[in-house]
Amino acid sequence: MCGIFGIFGHEEAANLTYLGLHALQHRGQESAGIASSDGRGLYVHREMGLVQEVFPQAVLGRLVGSAAIGHVRYSTAGGSGIKNAQPLVVDFSMGSLAVAHNGNLTNAEGLRKELEGRGSIFQSSADTETIVHLIAISRGQTLEKRVAEALGQVEGAYSLLFLMPDRMIAVRDPLGIRPLCLGKLKKGGAPVIASESVSFDLIEAELDRELSPGEMLVMDWGGVRSYFPFRREERRECIFEHVYFSRPDTRVGKGTVYEVRRRCGEVLAREAPVEADVVVAVPDSGVPAAIGFARAAGLPFEVGLTRSHYVGRTFIEPQQTIRHFGVRLKLNPVRSTLEGRRVVVIDDSIVRGTTSRKIVKMLRDAGAREVHVRISSPPTRWPCYYGIDTPTRGELIASSHTSEQIARYLTADSLGYLTLDGLQQTVAEVTGGTTPGGFCHACFSGSYPIPFAPTPSSRQLPLLS
Amino acid sequence: MCGIFGIFGHEEAANLTYLGLHALQHRGQESAGIASSDGRGLYVHREMGLVQEVFPQAVLGRLVGSAAIGHVRYSTAGGSGIKNAQPLVVDFSMGSLAVAHNGNLTNAEGLRKELEGRGSIFQSSADTETIVHLIAISRGQTLEKRVAEALGQVEGAYSLLFLMPDRMIAVRDPLGIRPLCLGKLKKGGAPVIASESVSFDLIEAELDRELSPGEMLVMDWGGVRSYFPFRREERRECIFEHVYFSRPDTRVGKGTVYEVRRRCGEVLAREAPVEADVVVAVPDSGVPAAIGFARAAGLPFEVGLTRSHYVGRTFIEPQQTIRHFGVRLKLNPVRSTLEGRRVVVIDDSIVRGTTSRKIVKMLRDAGAREVHVRISSPPTRWPCYYGIDTPTRGELIASSHTSEQIARYLTADSLGYLTLDGLQQTVAEVTGGTTPGGFCHACFSGSYPIPFAPTPSSRQLPLLS
Amino acid sequence: MCGIFGIFGHEEAANLTYLGLHALQHRGQESAGIASSDGRGLYVHREMGLVQEVFPQAVLGRLVGSAAIGHVRYSTAGGSGIKNAQPLVVDFSMGSLAVAHNGNLTNAEGLRKELEGRGSIFQSSADTETIVHLIAISRGQTLEKRVAEALGQVEGAYSLLFLMPDRMIAVRDPLGIRPLCLGKLKKGGAPVIASESVSFDLIEAELDRELSPGEMLVMDWGGVRSYFPFRREERRECIFEHVYFSRPDTRVGKGTVYEVRRRCGEVLAREAPVEADVVVAVPDSGVPAAIGFARAAGLPFEVGLTRSHYVGRTFIEPQQTIRHFGVRLKLNPVRSTLEGRRVVVIDDSIVRGTTSRKIVKMLRDAGAREVHVRISSPPTRWPCYYGIDTPTRGELIASSHTSEQIARYLTADSLGYLTLDGLQQTVAEVTGGTTPGGFCHACFSGSYPIPFAPTPSSRQLPLLS
Amino acid sequence: MCGIFGIFGHEEAANLTYLGLHALQHRGQESAGIASSDGRGLYVHREMGLVQEVFPQAVLGRLVGSAAIGHVRYSTAGGSGIKNAQPLVVDFSMGSLAVAHNGNLTNAEGLRKELEGRGSIFQSSADTETIVHLIAISRGQTLEKRVAEALGQVEGAYSLLFLMPDRMIAVRDPLGIRPLCLGKLKKGGAPVIASESVSFDLIEAELDRELSPGEMLVMDWGGVRSYFPFRREERRECIFEHVYFSRPDTRVGKGTVYEVRRRCGEVLAREAPVEADVVVAVPDSGVPAAIGFARAAGLPFEVGLTRSHYVGRTFIEPQQTIRHFGVRLKLNPVRSTLEGRRVVVIDDSIVRGTTSRKIVKMLRDAGAREVHVRISSPPTRWPCYYGIDTPTRGELIASSHTSEQIARYLTADSLGYLTLDGLQQTVAEVTGGTTPGGFCHACFSGSYPIPFAPTPSSRQLPLLS
Repeated sequence: MCGIFGIFGHEEAANLTYLGLHALQHRGQESAGIASSDGRGLYVHREMGLVQEVFPQAVLGRLVGSAAIGHVRYSTAGGSGIKNAQPLVVDFSMGSLAVAHNGNLTNAEGLRKELEGRGSIFQSSADTETIVHLIAISRGQTLEKRVAEALGQVEGAYSLLFLMPDRMIAVRDPLGIRPLCLGKLKKGGAPVIASESVSFDLIEAELDRELSPGEMLVMDWGGVRSYFPFRREERRECIFEHVYFSRPDTRVGKGTVYEVRRRCGEVLAREAPVEADVVVAVPDSGVPAAIGFARAAGLPFEVGLTRSHYVGRTFIEPQQTIRHFGVRLKLNPVRSTLEGRRVVVIDDSIVRGTTSRKIVKMLRDAGAREVHVRISSPPTRWPCYYGIDTPTRGELIASSHTSEQIARYLTADSLGYLTLDGLQQTVAEVTGGTTPGGFCHACFSGSYPIPFAPTPSSRQLPLLS
Repeated sequence: MCGIFGIFGHEEAANLTYLGLHALQHRGQESAGIASSDGRGLYVHREMGLVQEVFPQAVLGRLVGSAAIGHVRYSTAGGSGIKNAQPLVVDFSMGSLAVAHNGNLTNAEGLRKELEGRGSIFQSSADTETIVHLIAISRGQTLEKRVAEALGQVEGAYSLLFLMPDRMIAVRDPLGIRPLCLGKLKKGGAPVIASESVSFDLIEAELDRELSPGEMLVMDWGGVRSYFPFRREERRECIFEHVYFSRPDTRVGKGTVYEVRRRCGEVLAREAPVEADVVVAVPDSGVPAAIGFARAAGLPFEVGLTRSHYVGRTFIEPQQTIRHFGVRLKLNPVRSTLEGRRVVVIDDSIVRGTTSRKIVKMLRDAGAREVHVRISSPPTRWPCYYGIDTPTRGELIASSHTSEQIARYLTADSLGYLTLDGLQQTVAEVTGGTTPGGFCHACFSGSYPIPFAPTPSSRQLPLLS
Repeated sequence: MCGIFGIFGHEEAANLTYLGLHALQHRGQESAGIASSDGRGLYVHREMGLVQEVFPQAVLGRLVGSAAIGHVRYSTAGGSGIKNAQPLVVDFSMGSLAVAHNGNLTNAEGLRKELEGRGSIFQSSADTETIVHLIAISRGQTLEKRVAEALGQVEGAYSLLFLMPDRMIAVRDPLGIRPLCLGKLKKGGAPVIASESVSFDLIEAELDRELSPGEMLVMDWGGVRSYFPFRREERRECIFEHVYFSRPDTRVGKGTVYEVRRRCGEVLAREAPVEADVVVAVPDSGVPAAIGFARAAGLPFEVGLTRSHYVGRTFIEPQQTIRHFGVRLKLNPVRSTLEGRRVVVIDDSIVRGTTSRKIVKMLRDAGAREVHVRISSPPTRWPCYYGIDTPTRGELIASSHTSEQIARYLTADSLGYLTLDGLQQTVAEVTGGTTPGGFCHACFSGSYPIPFAPTPSSRQLPLLS
Repeated sequence: MCGIFGIFGHEEAANLTYLGLHALQHRGQESAGIASSDGRGLYVHREMGLVQEVFPQAVLGRLVGSAAIGHVRYSTAGGSGIKNAQPLVVDFSMGSLAVAHNGNLTNAEGLRKELEGRGSIFQSSADTETIVHLIAISRGQTLEKRVAEALGQVEGAYSLLFLMPDRMIAVRDPLGIRPLCLGKLKKGGAPVIASESVSFDLIEAELDRELSPGEMLVMDWGGVRSYFPFRREERRECIFEHVYFSRPDTRVGKGTVYEVRRRCGEVLAREAPVEADVVVAVPDSGVPAAIGFARAAGLPFEVGLTRSHYVGRTFIEPQQTIRHFGVRLKLNPVRSTLEGRRVVVIDDSIVRGTTSRKIVKMLRDAGAREVHVRISSPPTRWPCYYGIDTPTRGELIASSHTSEQIARYLTADSLGYLTLDGLQQTVAEVTGGTTPGGFCHACFSGSYPIPFAPTPSSRQLPLLS
């Protein structure tokens, strides 16, 4: 998971990119970076840390120019470190180029070996460097042509931003797996690109539309031009963005992610009903579905668990020195909600099951008479190869256990999941445009829209530099 | 606002204090400190920053011993800086002494002048130093006697923890303005003291009881002894702790703060009803009351505003370099909840009105057809002199404007507050023990339980050292 | 060892103090601090680290006003840490007061106990706090009177600077043990005070004179006034300042420290002659004496050891994590100077003997045929109680070993020391004003000019805060 | 200027590299880096700062394995920043490769354009990346062959270290411009490579020999093998290493740099004699020549200027925020040496003349009656293109002014330089092996041994990342 943002044609390009990245901070807290252009050259700064830590005012001030792209990153196994921070900035035959990437290539290892065989050198373990090499060896006359030619060779998920001194290019992969949308500033109309529409809200831009799968937008002083350089494919948007990653206030189609999640809760209440006294959420991501579940079930929605915001997001933090205090550092029960009650607790997903098990115990210790776990997505059974850092199959509890077995492991009185049909139907209804078949749901179904190399690389990677 | 924590008789005293302070982090993010005792001497570390920043493992490891007290602090005007970080540690005639203080003395200035006249020197601007001077010049034979004699001379609000090599003392002021409670570790039974019970949840201690107003607890290897060294006064607990400061999962009497707030929302719905389509909260503190309001009003509760947790708490942060981007850095509307709807938005209080005005505008910009503001406490009209950093009277919008005038300023379609009776009644009912008259509600009523010096000091204070 | 600097009546007081402290950096590298006055209040900043690290431009800019005092500090056993960093700034009955101190009181422990008995509290382990307490409890009408009354009660060595909003006071102890001199800016004539004249060179001030033992200078907008509030005593300047601590370019009387040291080398050559081929110094402090020795002995002076300046000063650094690599991290032989030669190596003193032994071995390993150690001061046999951090008697090799025994331990072919007479005579001749009897040479002779408490305190001190 | 160090076959490879770099710290203080190998992969850490700042114990501990190379760097115009810190580590078709480079290529710009034309991308502005690209596109079967083929295409000065998991390669350019020497650990005999022999002294290794110009050493578990893959050329060692850069304790041929410099002083005294009373040095680099000058002239050598070691080396520091205080921050006169005397002051070179002018003024202000400047090298008239960061020709005062004109600018009573013949003759005599013609002295003579591209690149470089 990463977040990307770009703007072309505003004198405070770096400042607006800083704000845009701040709004995307939930998509990655490991490193942040911005590259700007003043029409002649590129300027870049990237570092480990949160956006507000990486960019004190003095640093932002050095990122001059009227175009900029930015990136926030979370770490993946083995790929942590400043070397993989983005945007990547290189010099090549056409001049200087900066790239920001959200996604994951499935044929990167093969391409890398080919490129190395041809004489290329690699200074990071990021797929992005592979894309840049392909652009550099392309014989296209324009950056657009080279980007199209390079991306024609890669497979996988990518939302990309390219910046050269005179232009910015945004591309969404042919299946549209990772999100990317276009907006424009209310004042002046400069085009902006972001992973989620929440970036636009903050900087007073308005959402124009999502990029179509396979679309390439070229922005320069002549305006914004749209191309479709790839073979058209069936849309396969990542459905897990709706379940977990995107912010609830992000707009999708004619609705919002919040609405999707609340309605998933409603459907879940019908698909997996239970006799109970109260519905609580695992905060914050479980709240919308819990509101929906409670309403559809005719049960009161209450706050049963509070969350400390002085500890980072479990799923994303690369180093957790205080993990041994367990989930209690982050979550705490509200005793008056739970005592003597039959409690339904709503979460967005179960990965390994260890956290859920601790939550059930926490609820019981606080006096809950019964604990019924309801998950607002189907069982997570398969790893993602398209840019989300999930455990291996073996670690995913649902890949090898039935719901009954999992419920027993969690010590829950019952466990219920949303069906894949229910999820797809709901997302399609809320977003309004996508047909139920238009999603990538490989993490639930194992139905991968893009084939991938079966053996992950075991190559020894250089340490942090 | 500050938070204090102490433990006596556990070999990991400093580690548990670290965790206890983490659970109290919402009470102060400016500085943190811990003093420990190994029975012979005291060890201390304090620094500006969050608990997890101030105490890396290596520092914690140096805080040896089986007793410890800790403190988290938020800044008040003019008093920021490491000099005022606590615990304060001094040597005096009885040996070494550490003190952690939550509250504010109303006769500190006068006492300070008297002490200076007597030859005392002051190295900070904190009231705590005044208390320590009074202890040092007392002729009492034991620390208990000296503490009682010293506190007999001060007026104001204080919850205090004292640590000497062989004992720990906890004191709550005679009116019980600031909270303080006693617990014990489930394993081993070591006594623990904290501003709020949430500290106990994290470290696997159980809440025993709140300290009574005017109670002094002495903890040493002989156990815990209770004294009441002061003249008994009528209990006057700060009601604003329930409205805003305490964490919702904090237990008060036989209920929780969450329950108080939710029921305040229910009462508010009856006291200030409105025709509307949806109820939303200003997160996070408005959520419980919004749930209650929605339920009592028979309206759907929805998420209408999201909150970014990558920016600190508005009311508490001393420096806000990015304040000019306004509330949008922190809050963002969920368009699908608001569009075309008549919206009730619930907040806990209105201070200056500037933030509320921006929120109303944000809701309207996101499509709300009507915006009705409901506040789950009475109008805040008077400054607090007992340890909460509030603006001067002139800055409190409700001190000089009627509700109608405020509503107009906010550009709200209507504005309603909870009545003071409603608030007192609700807190009393949920907590179970306190009669409606037992609160300090000076911020709402101007009825100050302790007189105070009218002219604040204009003394030039030394800068940060 | 510490260094102090003060200036009264220049609009860039803090900047000039910063420079003045930089020139005194050799007197202490552990912490640095500056307090300034704008006529109404005091401003202070102090931190662990070198002057240039502690005072970035932004911090200096906050230290407004036209008077300032500063301090650099090296740590003593048990007294390290920010709590003991100076200037100490307090509020007392007359207002705000800052103090910077170089020296050590010999009756501090007793005074401290008395003051504690009277009700005083101590927040540091520094003697300076004792002095401030004595000032605070004095009944004198002016700061001058209080300072005189307070210092009338202390015993030991002190060079002190006091700053209040409207005046600055400098005091040198009655024996004149620690140095202090008065200068004035060439432009404007503002008075400046410093431990050594090298501070004046840097800021374009000229040396006026050394303060007399027991002299108190009061500087305010009315000018500089001199007082002698104490009983006159025989001058007892620290002779070790000449041997080791002061910078060679520091002016003393009508000469310089360099000249003293070079002439000590000349006397040493006559007192302890040796047949040899070459004279080398242990850099940097042995260089002047080696030049003198070589000249008087008619031998060539050469560079035989180089010194890395990327490692701090051995005698002063409180933490030496890389000490195990030994003296080789700092010194390295110049083989072409040493190979096959009979080498005289000059050092200023021998403390424990361990470093000297390593140096002799290093010289031999580099090919020296003979190694003759010559020390440009007498054997160091007694600890200093007046402000220099020396080892205990037991650790001083010369306290229990003859020169022959030490030479054998060092594996030197011969060892010779300067006599105390030779040292005193030389210093007296070069400085021109002091009679041979006018020095404190207790470290060599055991003849302490001030009695001292025999049992050092074993009180447990609080850790770094 | 940079320093490089490598070791193969010792279990504490990274620790020894850390020490070796510490001994080379004078060659670059901007950044430091180490890459290690455990036989399977490479580990790397590099950062801005001094060796001891960049490598705390925890970081060193992560650099596992029994081979390592390291680098210290000083900045050149436009090339500052972490991107250019070394060792550079890349993956290419043969695996992982780390490179450390001291020197400068003269055809880098052309090679870079060619490589970009071929499709290569560049992530830094360092020549080293060009070399790595050439290795990557080589078709050689072994690293040795590829390195030889790559370096066959470059022109300029280079001392290089390459590390792959199973081998280390050291190469010195065909003219031998930059130094490089081979040693072995006294215990165990592991081979070590360093820019200067002082690295060996520190780690208890012994100097074996300097690498011959054009020599390539391959070190693996089979031992050390020597190759000469390039066409033999006439040796052209940088003579300025002797004058300024190398440490005086560095061994060159059968002598030391100290001896070279002292004898240059002796020759200078004969070539440019003067009537005077005393000889002083501009410390530290002028000291050896001043000793020699004084001896040959029969004048006393004295310390006339002291140097503060709390400020970095003028010639090397990239940012000098306090430069406006001038040379006085670093140098201070010893008045007793200068007053009323005719002074000869010895420095190693004059670059722009501004510092020398300040020194002359400083000596006069301290009372010198006459000031005679003597320079222990010829006039510096031409910029260096082989790895030393010198000003452009226009800034070199000697490129456009006669000695008389310069003397007048300096306000010196006389000015004398060493002749190029005198310098060459002296170096040849001391080192014993090199004929007078075997040096690169282009900075003095303009006789460049390698042609170079006349127009420096004006390409816009990316900012620090």
